[in-house]
Amino acid sequence: MTYTLSGCRVITGNEQCPYYPAANIVIKDGIIKKIGPAEICPAEGEQISLRGKLVAPGLINCHHHLPSVLYRDLGSDLPLMDWLQQAMWPAQAHMTGEDAYCAALLSCAEQIQNGITTTVDQYYYADCNARAVKRSGMRAVIGATVFDHPSPESKDTLQTAVDFIEKYRHDERITPCFGPHAPYTESPRTYRRIAALAAEMGVMVHTHIGETRGEIDCIREKYGTTSTQLLEETGLFENRVIAAHNIYLSPQDIDIFAKYQVGAVFCPVSNLKLASGIPDIAPFIKAGIPTAFGTDGAESNNALDLLQDAKIGLLLQKTMHRDAALMPAEQGLAMLTAEAADIIGMAHCLGRLMPGYQADLVVFDDAFANAVPHHATAAQETAHLLYSLSGKNVQSTMVAGKWLMYERQIRTFDYPAVARQVQQRAARIAADAGLL
Amino acid sequence: MTYTLSGCRVITGNEQCPYYPAANIVIKDGIIKKIGPAEICPAEGEQISLRGKLVAPGLINCHHHLPSVLYRDLGSDLPLMDWLQQAMWPAQAHMTGEDAYCAALLSCAEQIQNGITTTVDQYYYADCNARAVKRSGMRAVIGATVFDHPSPESKDTLQTAVDFIEKYRHDERITPCFGPHAPYTESPRTYRRIAALAAEMGVMVHTHIGETRGEIDCIREKYGTTSTQLLEETGLFENRVIAAHNIYLSPQDIDIFAKYQVGAVFCPVSNLKLASGIPDIAPFIKAGIPTAFGTDGAESNNALDLLQDAKIGLLLQKTMHRDAALMPAEQGLAMLTAEAADIIGMAHCLGRLMPGYQADLVVFDDAFANAVPHHATAAQETAHLLYSLSGKNVQSTMVAGKWLMYERQIRTFDYPAVARQVQQRAARIAADAGLL
Repeated sequence: MTYTLSGCRVITGNEQCPYYPAANIVIKDGIIKKIGPAEICPAEGEQISLRGKLVAPGLINCHHHLPSVLYRDLGSDLPLMDWLQQAMWPAQAHMTGEDAYCAALLSCAEQIQNGITTTVDQYYYADCNARAVKRSGMRAVIGATVFDHPSPESKDTLQTAVDFIEKYRHDERITPCFGPHAPYTESPRTYRRIAALAAEMGVMVHTHIGETRGEIDCIREKYGTTSTQLLEETGLFENRVIAAHNIYLSPQDIDIFAKYQVGAVFCPVSNLKLASGIPDIAPFIKAGIPTAFGTDGAESNNALDLLQDAKIGLLLQKTMHRDAALMPAEQGLAMLTAEAADIIGMAHCLGRLMPGYQADLVVFDDAFANAVPHHATAAQETAHLLYSLSGKNVQSTMVAGKWLMYERQIRTFDYPAVARQVQQRAARIAADAGLL
Repeated sequence: MTYTLSGCRVITGNEQCPYYPAANIVIKDGIIKKIGPAEICPAEGEQISLRGKLVAPGLINCHHHLPSVLYRDLGSDLPLMDWLQQAMWPAQAHMTGEDAYCAALLSCAEQIQNGITTTVDQYYYADCNARAVKRSGMRAVIGATVFDHPSPESKDTLQTAVDFIEKYRHDERITPCFGPHAPYTESPRTYRRIAALAAEMGVMVHTHIGETRGEIDCIREKYGTTSTQLLEETGLFENRVIAAHNIYLSPQDIDIFAKYQVGAVFCPVSNLKLASGIPDIAPFIKAGIPTAFGTDGAESNNALDLLQDAKIGLLLQKTMHRDAALMPAEQGLAMLTAEAADIIGMAHCLGRLMPGYQADLVVFDDAFANAVPHHATAAQETAHLLYSLSGKNVQSTMVAGKWLMYERQIRTFDYPAVARQVQQRAARIAADAGLL
């Protein structure tokens, strides 16, 4: 089926032609066939007028925990260990697979509402999460959590992860992978097994690295090295690795990231909330490492508005380095789209609006006054997207040529029913965990 | 006229009873007559059901420049002096009073959409701004800018400010005041004259203090002291003063703030964008100084979503001080409501939802998934408001018992027409200033 989105302002993410003030986007069978001004790219098939609206590549959320919306607002303002012991662990112990499925669907709704078309996850109940993502119409890279200890889902999380990967490895919108939690909770032996399995199965690994000073101290004490160097020794980085947080990395660690092209994902809002530290992104970019942003889970963010994470992430770099010119909006755009696609191995088909790429895109309107005015150059429109807009401005969201949300109505499932379900399930979990 | 908002969850801001899971709010002639559960506070007059929705005191934006939405996205990612010289000053030189009026109205729309009911301003064209605020239905403290040099509005900005104050001093929703720009641009003599005039006229002063390291160096070089100590010598603090930014204050300066109870307003997002620095709020609170948040103008934020400023402001303190328990959500709520009302001298009638107070309030719904779930204690609902919600969740906004926005439709003026006007005027200004 062929149709045309017509008359829109377009931020393409394509370096050759970053911006069109008024363009047609011809979509055929879910793929962008042509894009450009009407004179050189006439409409084909049905026309959907997006006159005056701003279209950008769908955002890619490179670190998330889908079901954790269940724990939103629980244990706020507690120090990290109290938060884990008094709120998170008791709550998690009362979560079932069906709770995870419902919550993951709400989490997809929130991401779709915020213009996120691909989410990169790491959690147990990976199969429930994958089912929710499929129903929502989003894309996802889903890392099945691997713990050294059992999870509520499984006594052998590594075997569960292998089974999950086998089940989804040929899925068109789910990319399964391994999700070992972190080097301070999982042993080098576990990472070594995962490194070998990932190589054998040809899949990615999504893990936390360098999130807190406590982690670094613990690894130094236990192994006499850094988290990054420890993981290098396990052979993990021979695979494509998505590393979340990266706050406490040494210059040597950053060299290792550069050598193996480890994908560095930054979650500034979550890091601030847990008082973990401020990630310093500039050295990663300087070293040529692909970088991206993640919201992290709603239990620590508490929102999944990736544009806000990007804005705060960029602005923090400016102030940390006392340089307002550092980390311009263009860099932020790349981190939300093309570089993020590169990190998940999909730079050939995602993260840009150009012929041959998937029609994954987001439409912004001016229903809210923060979208007014806008100006006519590529730099101004990119600044507009990164600094002025947020999830609230998203009018419609498309994946593979299909509207997941159109004019603020989610089309793939019954959002109000899911919201009611999650409200009930979260209340039950909070009560069972003694948190009310 | 008497009517009742019924069945809502209410964050009151009243320390004696901070939260109701289901309450009626009886409003008579724009004032809250009664508030509480239906059993003890039966509905009177027409009932407007807000069942399940969350109601909070209207937010107070304590530092803003209303017309500056005209400059949104111009000169992004430039160092401060380049941004001023290449973008802001050329653009400002092309702004007329009618431009200011239109832009101020858009700025009111954006604030109403974000649940802000009172805005505290500092700009020239104060009369245009006051007219826009009156039309929008908001409340405002409007500081007429005083410069040592002429403004595009006036050759004698001090006289213009005096005239403005005389004109509006008995207005029921506009509180006029003096707005001297900053100690690094205005002379001690000017501040001394303003200090005397403010005392004589019984009005407040709204100024910038300690915004950049450059300011502190300049004042030290010129006068051998700090901005705060210089202003103390002028007698300024004998009046009620609203001081914006406060990044570079010494412990002695903070003592001066405490002695005179200067209102300290923090604008974390704007400060990060201009690489000015990270404001440290905790010492001000410890010293018993009333504190609040401001968005600053859209030219440096670029959004007017005060809940996001508060979230980032609180989270930054946690990380700066490595203490996730520091600056809890309750403190953030106070800074957005009751303490902000105190700073502008209206603690007796604004900032809390309790009998005798103005019916200035904001209603949040769950149309967006970031509002789901919510939990049932005062602490959890306050965390929900400060960390999970943002302006996008605002469904309705009321000032003095009148809906300015109801179910996301602005009722006091034609928002789409204003948005079109501002788009045209901003394009003209950017073109005239050579910024396209």
